[in-house]
Amino acid sequence: MRLSELGEFGLIDLIRRRSAKHANPKCVPWREIIVGIGDDAAAWQTDGRIQLATTDTLVQDVHFNLDVVNWEELGWKALAVNLSDIAAMGGIPRYALLSLALPGKLEVEDMSKFIDGMLDMAGEFGVALVGGNVATAPNVVITVTIIGFSKGKGLLKRSTASSGEQVAVTGWLGSSAAGLQMLKGKAISNPEVSSFLRQAHLKPVPRVREGQILVQQGVKTAIDISDGLIADLDHICESSKVNARIRIEQVPIHPLVTANFRNYRELALSGGEDYELLFTADEATIARVKKALNCLVTVIGDITKEKLPRRVIVVSRKGDIVSYKKGGWEHFKNGRPEVKFA
Amino acid sequence: MRLSELGEFGLIDLIRRRSAKHANPKCVPWREIIVGIGDDAAAWQTDGRIQLATTDTLVQDVHFNLDVVNWEELGWKALAVNLSDIAAMGGIPRYALLSLALPGKLEVEDMSKFIDGMLDMAGEFGVALVGGNVATAPNVVITVTIIGFSKGKGLLKRSTASSGEQVAVTGWLGSSAAGLQMLKGKAISNPEVSSFLRQAHLKPVPRVREGQILVQQGVKTAIDISDGLIADLDHICESSKVNARIRIEQVPIHPLVTANFRNYRELALSGGEDYELLFTADEATIARVKKALNCLVTVIGDITKEKLPRRVIVVSRKGDIVSYKKGGWEHFKNGRPEVKFA
Repeated sequence: MRLSELGEFGLIDLIRRRSAKHANPKCVPWREIIVGIGDDAAAWQTDGRIQLATTDTLVQDVHFNLDVVNWEELGWKALAVNLSDIAAMGGIPRYALLSLALPGKLEVEDMSKFIDGMLDMAGEFGVALVGGNVATAPNVVITVTIIGFSKGKGLLKRSTASSGEQVAVTGWLGSSAAGLQMLKGKAISNPEVSSFLRQAHLKPVPRVREGQILVQQGVKTAIDISDGLIADLDHICESSKVNARIRIEQVPIHPLVTANFRNYRELALSGGEDYELLFTADEATIARVKKALNCLVTVIGDITKEKLPRRVIVVSRKGDIVSYKKGGWEHFKNGRPEVKFA
Repeated sequence: MRLSELGEFGLIDLIRRRSAKHANPKCVPWREIIVGIGDDAAAWQTDGRIQLATTDTLVQDVHFNLDVVNWEELGWKALAVNLSDIAAMGGIPRYALLSLALPGKLEVEDMSKFIDGMLDMAGEFGVALVGGNVATAPNVVITVTIIGFSKGKGLLKRSTASSGEQVAVTGWLGSSAAGLQMLKGKAISNPEVSSFLRQAHLKPVPRVREGQILVQQGVKTAIDISDGLIADLDHICESSKVNARIRIEQVPIHPLVTANFRNYRELALSGGEDYELLFTADEATIARVKKALNCLVTVIGDITKEKLPRRVIVVSRKGDIVSYKKGGWEHFKNGRPEVKFA
């Protein structure tokens, strides 16, 4: 069997299973692991606190296209997507390592812009670039690792959602995927709209502080929206062994996206790369979170143990199930994400 | 200017300089950094101890060729080269993150072998694979990050060599580069020799325990030999602002290499990828190290403040300077390492 048949999540599962076989759960370091393979970041107990580490890779012509992204944006985004994984754990990012695989023909000036873009993003969240590696390669591959800590003993995980909880999300969904459609050629004549969309796709701001506030307010379960709303909610449901219902009318979509994209719902449900936080909690906690956060927070559905036709269902205002074909980004298996509505 | 003109070390220097501009040395996390960009691993102060982190990337057709390496060896080596960076700091490796960029056409079975090879190496040193990332890519790029701790407060750095110290090395040099020559086509008829050489190039054993013992015995300065003896000693000299002299007759070369490779001296001086430790210390410390270590330890030269024709010189038994053209691996700039003797 080839990776293209097994898919990204199948490969992660394979690595997790083989890794579990080699573990010595009674010994250090395994004894100290709190969250291993399969969440947004790994977490383990260290002297006084919980440490977090995550790594993410951007591959040329898979994650980005040098014809449309500039180097400064690429540096920003390469760090932002990693910080978003720390945000999804409710953690504090501290140190970054950067591994660059690059063709020798690249311009040094472009690399300076790339590094500056990355350091601008790092500066926003007090992250120090402490090391890394550079190597020759036929195409650009950027890998960033972030090491951080949890704020106190709290941690946001994927595996703690429980029946009866509400599903909520920060910010607007679908803007990044709309931006990608524009960058791929969809004509947008209004320069303000075009600038908003470009920013949404290429200069996302990870919800680092929001993640920390979620922990403070007692939220236990979160993920960042990188693969797409349905796909990421499905990750929570799979980890937590629950099901979920999304009320399609409640999914927050920016007016500039609804006004300019006919497929705005598909973009919001499975476009991905919004780097918003998707979280679950009881009603009272969500009410507190809404007061504590400085950004839009929208309840879009609920967690249930009910037997549903699939792990995540989408329902209309009337309660009818809206059918969709599996969407969301999955490496090896498909191209850019799309949800097909039947 | 292009990266191919700037070179690997020029790019690292560019990143270091721009990063320094963005630092807030009085604030966390910068205040806690002990070793930043430009050593084998980054080090910073955490609650009770010093934490270490390092990342390294292997790129298909740059670092390895799938026609000659098998997947199990590749997994082993990808982790080993990273553990070697922790060894070069005298640290204890604990957690690994793995980022894989892979073509979808790869066989799942091969990936299983790769993971098992990596986990075998991890098991040797009690390292837990706690997370990572997988993504589609046109060619294989493997990035490993290791997080560890220093043993007590000691740390091996590149920047602490001082005049009058001896230069010493663990194990044999040049075997890995000899192995590469064989894998590239040089005929070796004896299967024992062939197996020794293959192992030397594809299944290096990082000197993790030896690095820790160096710290215990009071050694302050070390690097692992990845780029090549001369190149790596040059890194120490540059960081420490000293010069060094290698006595060519004393460089330890395995009898199977001297017997089968005419260019054995070039292989040993600049072949690279031996993953032995190169370190400096006063005579009494080196004498203690020789007793404490279970492996070959050879004094091969000395550190000096004398003005020499170049930072690292190679001298014959009679004391004559043996001239060489710059060798050692440098990404973007050159192909495989070679030292040319005039």
